[in-house]
Amino acid sequence: MTTADPAPAGPGARAAARYRPSAQVDLPGRRWPGNAITRAPRWLSTDLRDGNQSLARPMGPERKMAMFDLLVRMGYREIEIGFPVASQDDFTFVRALIDGDLIPDDVRISVLVQARDELIRRTVESLEGARAATIHLYNATSPLFRRVVFGMDRDECKDLAVQGTRLVTKYADRLLGGCDLGFQYSPELFNDTEPEFSLEVCEAVMDEWDPCEGRGIILNFPTTVERSMPNVFADQIEWLDRHLSRRAHVCLSVHPHNDRGTGVASAEMALLAGAQRIEGCLFGNGERAGNVCLVTLGLNMLAQGVDPGIDFADLDGVRHTVEECNGLLVHPRHPYGGDLVYTSFSGSHQDAINKGFDALERAAAETGADPRELPWEMPYLPIDPRDVGRTYEAVVRINSQSGKGGVAYIMGAWHGMDLPRPLQVDFARVVQAHADAEGGEVTPERVKDLFDREYLEYPALPVPLVFAGDPVSAELHIDAGGFDPGDARTARLNGLKEALARWGVEVRAVHHTAREGARGGREASAEVVVYAQCRAGGRSTWGAGVAPDAGAAALSAVRSAMTRARLDAITAVPGVPVVREAPAARVRALAAAAAPVVPAAVPVPVRPVRRRHHPG
Amino acid sequence: MTTADPAPAGPGARAAARYRPSAQVDLPGRRWPGNAITRAPRWLSTDLRDGNQSLARPMGPERKMAMFDLLVRMGYREIEIGFPVASQDDFTFVRALIDGDLIPDDVRISVLVQARDELIRRTVESLEGARAATIHLYNATSPLFRRVVFGMDRDECKDLAVQGTRLVTKYADRLLGGCDLGFQYSPELFNDTEPEFSLEVCEAVMDEWDPCEGRGIILNFPTTVERSMPNVFADQIEWLDRHLSRRAHVCLSVHPHNDRGTGVASAEMALLAGAQRIEGCLFGNGERAGNVCLVTLGLNMLAQGVDPGIDFADLDGVRHTVEECNGLLVHPRHPYGGDLVYTSFSGSHQDAINKGFDALERAAAETGADPRELPWEMPYLPIDPRDVGRTYEAVVRINSQSGKGGVAYIMGAWHGMDLPRPLQVDFARVVQAHADAEGGEVTPERVKDLFDREYLEYPALPVPLVFAGDPVSAELHIDAGGFDPGDARTARLNGLKEALARWGVEVRAVHHTAREGARGGREASAEVVVYAQCRAGGRSTWGAGVAPDAGAAALSAVRSAMTRARLDAITAVPGVPVVREAPAARVRALAAAAAPVVPAAVPVPVRPVRRRHHPG
Repeated sequence: MTTADPAPAGPGARAAARYRPSAQVDLPGRRWPGNAITRAPRWLSTDLRDGNQSLARPMGPERKMAMFDLLVRMGYREIEIGFPVASQDDFTFVRALIDGDLIPDDVRISVLVQARDELIRRTVESLEGARAATIHLYNATSPLFRRVVFGMDRDECKDLAVQGTRLVTKYADRLLGGCDLGFQYSPELFNDTEPEFSLEVCEAVMDEWDPCEGRGIILNFPTTVERSMPNVFADQIEWLDRHLSRRAHVCLSVHPHNDRGTGVASAEMALLAGAQRIEGCLFGNGERAGNVCLVTLGLNMLAQGVDPGIDFADLDGVRHTVEECNGLLVHPRHPYGGDLVYTSFSGSHQDAINKGFDALERAAAETGADPRELPWEMPYLPIDPRDVGRTYEAVVRINSQSGKGGVAYIMGAWHGMDLPRPLQVDFARVVQAHADAEGGEVTPERVKDLFDREYLEYPALPVPLVFAGDPVSAELHIDAGGFDPGDARTARLNGLKEALARWGVEVRAVHHTAREGARGGREASAEVVVYAQCRAGGRSTWGAGVAPDAGAAALSAVRSAMTRARLDAITAVPGVPVVREAPAARVRALAAAAAPVVPAAVPVPVRPVRRRHHPG
Repeated sequence: MTTADPAPAGPGARAAARYRPSAQVDLPGRRWPGNAITRAPRWLSTDLRDGNQSLARPMGPERKMAMFDLLVRMGYREIEIGFPVASQDDFTFVRALIDGDLIPDDVRISVLVQARDELIRRTVESLEGARAATIHLYNATSPLFRRVVFGMDRDECKDLAVQGTRLVTKYADRLLGGCDLGFQYSPELFNDTEPEFSLEVCEAVMDEWDPCEGRGIILNFPTTVERSMPNVFADQIEWLDRHLSRRAHVCLSVHPHNDRGTGVASAEMALLAGAQRIEGCLFGNGERAGNVCLVTLGLNMLAQGVDPGIDFADLDGVRHTVEECNGLLVHPRHPYGGDLVYTSFSGSHQDAINKGFDALERAAAETGADPRELPWEMPYLPIDPRDVGRTYEAVVRINSQSGKGGVAYIMGAWHGMDLPRPLQVDFARVVQAHADAEGGEVTPERVKDLFDREYLEYPALPVPLVFAGDPVSAELHIDAGGFDPGDARTARLNGLKEALARWGVEVRAVHHTAREGARGGREASAEVVVYAQCRAGGRSTWGAGVAPDAGAAALSAVRSAMTRARLDAITAVPGVPVVREAPAARVRALAAAAAPVVPAAVPVPVRPVRRRHHPG
């Protein structure tokens, strides 16, 4: 096959002929592609205006108040609270905030209005008594709107903006004496407007407003409908940044929508190009495909080491309030906030994550640092979920695509059990067989249940069971969880070698783990887990045991391993079907085929393992 | 307020200190920001591999087959169908497609495999008998993975890739004799790998594969976890484009994920920078925040006049299948495909859209062209919803944020009624009052119901009713919908002036509309609607009437207007509460206060209007 065949003229050709590429700005020596974002911009939330007007069921007063409170708590200091002349509800809400003295001193409210006398008068009235407020004036400047919607030429369009600015001053002088008044102007559908004309209108508005020291102006450039690529938008913004007069007194603001799915990139490219302020909504609510998402933008900055100045430490709480207020759920794949964005199902991802946590824990142990303060370097996790208030529990989830790393992760993070690596492989086969058979997700509780059925709830077959004639050796892994392995409860371990010797088992090695890892180690527990690997005649089998002291747990583990070896031996009998089922089921199924058994030398009670730990 | 205050060091400062900015490439004289996309790239769908492995419940064989069929029907010619060694289900599916001869001749399948001998062998085995297949080899090359996950140095990492390439050749030579074999290599976590090292590994792989005429290679650069801004990614791609040897035989491919919400932009910037192929999933399914969305990318191209080579003409059908296969719903605000992305609730948007459709219909009438072939220029609608198989019915929805334009749109597009502009204003107040009172959305059916209650279902008050002594004049607007206004059914209109004169009403003007618009005009109907504006004593009132002929409808309309005027006069009586309710309710409420009435001169039957038209 050749390497770069163009797609043939296809089924979209007829439709494509109806659309034109967006115009590009001639920008010799553009600088923005080499810039970087090094500090947060000014943020404006328009959740209560552009977000609200896009809802089938707009927010009532209670939901509006909940949203306002959330925005204030998160740290937004400029909040567009409505469009008072478009909706009586909005007007009422503005009055409720002002009359109820509900606006913190460091928060500036903003309201939107078109450039018409009566509307501006009433909008200014809505703000009477406010301490700090911005009036956001707009008119449509794009050719399509001038022609089709308003039937205006360029001069009439510009005059409308200038007259509107004059009226804002007139009514504000009359009614807003004590207010720290801000003024914002937006040439609407900026991205569809000839850049020279946007500039001409903005300059005319500035001539009227007369920005100077202590009397700034916000010039806001909305991609009201996103139609062009982010690089084209960035060129437009850098062009403005170069050409706007009185630049020191202008706050260059952008208001990206997301019709092309590139709202976030457009905002970021605009920052590179000279923008100083971004308007958007939490989780990208807003008209059609939404306004740009303030959560994604803020956490993108954080993930590059730039403090966004906004508190995302309880992102699930933020999401809950936003979902309640908007009546729209956040998608499971929404960056940073979706249910699935810190989750891996695939085995190779899980394995890497498991190793990443191991490395983080080693680094923490070596440096004595809190793992939460260490630099975040983790496979497949763009940020530390804890930095947005998530736990690690959903980082790994299990289905038929998963492998040993994922199973080990679940056993460690959910159940506080640190499985030796060969046992991870052994157990992963059990989980995989279950997932293949069932087809869906295997919950952490089910994983533990499978472990118990496979390694702990073995039937009361007596020991020694197999390997008659072969010497048996055992390696023990004592998983002491949250308590000191030197604790009195381990004392009986000393007599263990003798007890096992009576079964003909030689203990070859005893390993201890007592991990208190970043994932959440096991809490101090009344029980010890022992994993035993028994070898005889060239074969090796794993078992596990749980008991209040290490000695009893070790005996259980060896008994589990030897029973499982016995069962494997049985299932390997010619003519008997090999079925991977829990030991108890296998025993029942194979009872008839079983060889005679020898009575147990040391009966050890089997205890069910209870789930100890839910990582937090 | 000053204009460019930085955000103060905020609540994210501690967390931000854990993260570093992504490294930027030194790229003097970068060219990509000035380029444009002028043709579609090669597309690869990885819905069945990367998409599938990210699902809590991976697709079973039936869902996989439904997805494969969909992809083929849409026009995707390269389809990654699985990861055969990671999942038995995937292996089985590959065999089912090949053994069942289910792969069209012009479709190339692809399978993923790590660089390990046994895995490559088994992967090649999975492809035996395939006509055209690509083996996609990958290994992780990023420093974090080399150090933490694999414990490898650079040379070992490179050798792994080279050995893997050699093994692909070895097993393919042995097992895939009749296959048109493609080869793809991905240095995983490309975006986190030192660019020089990615290049070094790719060159070593090419030395082994030896690409030449008729034996190309796909080099694929995944942002496995998206960590950097799209401009940084574009710089990396342009750098590769400049430095890769054997460039004519290399297909430079990208595989963006969406962790920063900038996957679409990264893919587009990469195309500007020299990429020729994009891997992604429909509606952005995939690990964590997803793979890049192939739907958005394709329709972004279409909206810029570039044929994507993919059929999106039944996007709702595509979405339905994708939702079924993935078990995940598409978000209402997903670009192009979400439920809400062609919908406006706000009054100013609706007004503009309504005027935009008027302009489109005029243009179609003037040029004699099909509106569906005319260039698409429409306020607030980035593309024509019909180009993706949507209707216009949801373009405008009504709630308390809506206005006359929206109400007029609903009456036109849903009910085929072309309300005169002053009547739009009059009726919008009725709808607004209802929306304010109820708080939610007002359905098109409810809007019609409100219209009927307000203008048609007036009570049987006799006429003439009011303005005794004042001369009454009426303007009639005959909305003949889909039939010829010169039709015989309008004949009775000629006697209308005389009939109305008997009531003391002078007909001042008769307007006709018979719109057959792009929105969907009224279908040929058995009934005519007449809107009447009656004036007397400086007051004006609207009414409407519906009847099989224009004369009867006009009489009903005048009667409606005069009855409403009478009711308004009654409600203006001192001491009687003014309530905006439907006329019938008002009549009942105000019966006691009513002045004596004069018997009707011409009784006119009132017929309920039925909904005629559902725009398609």
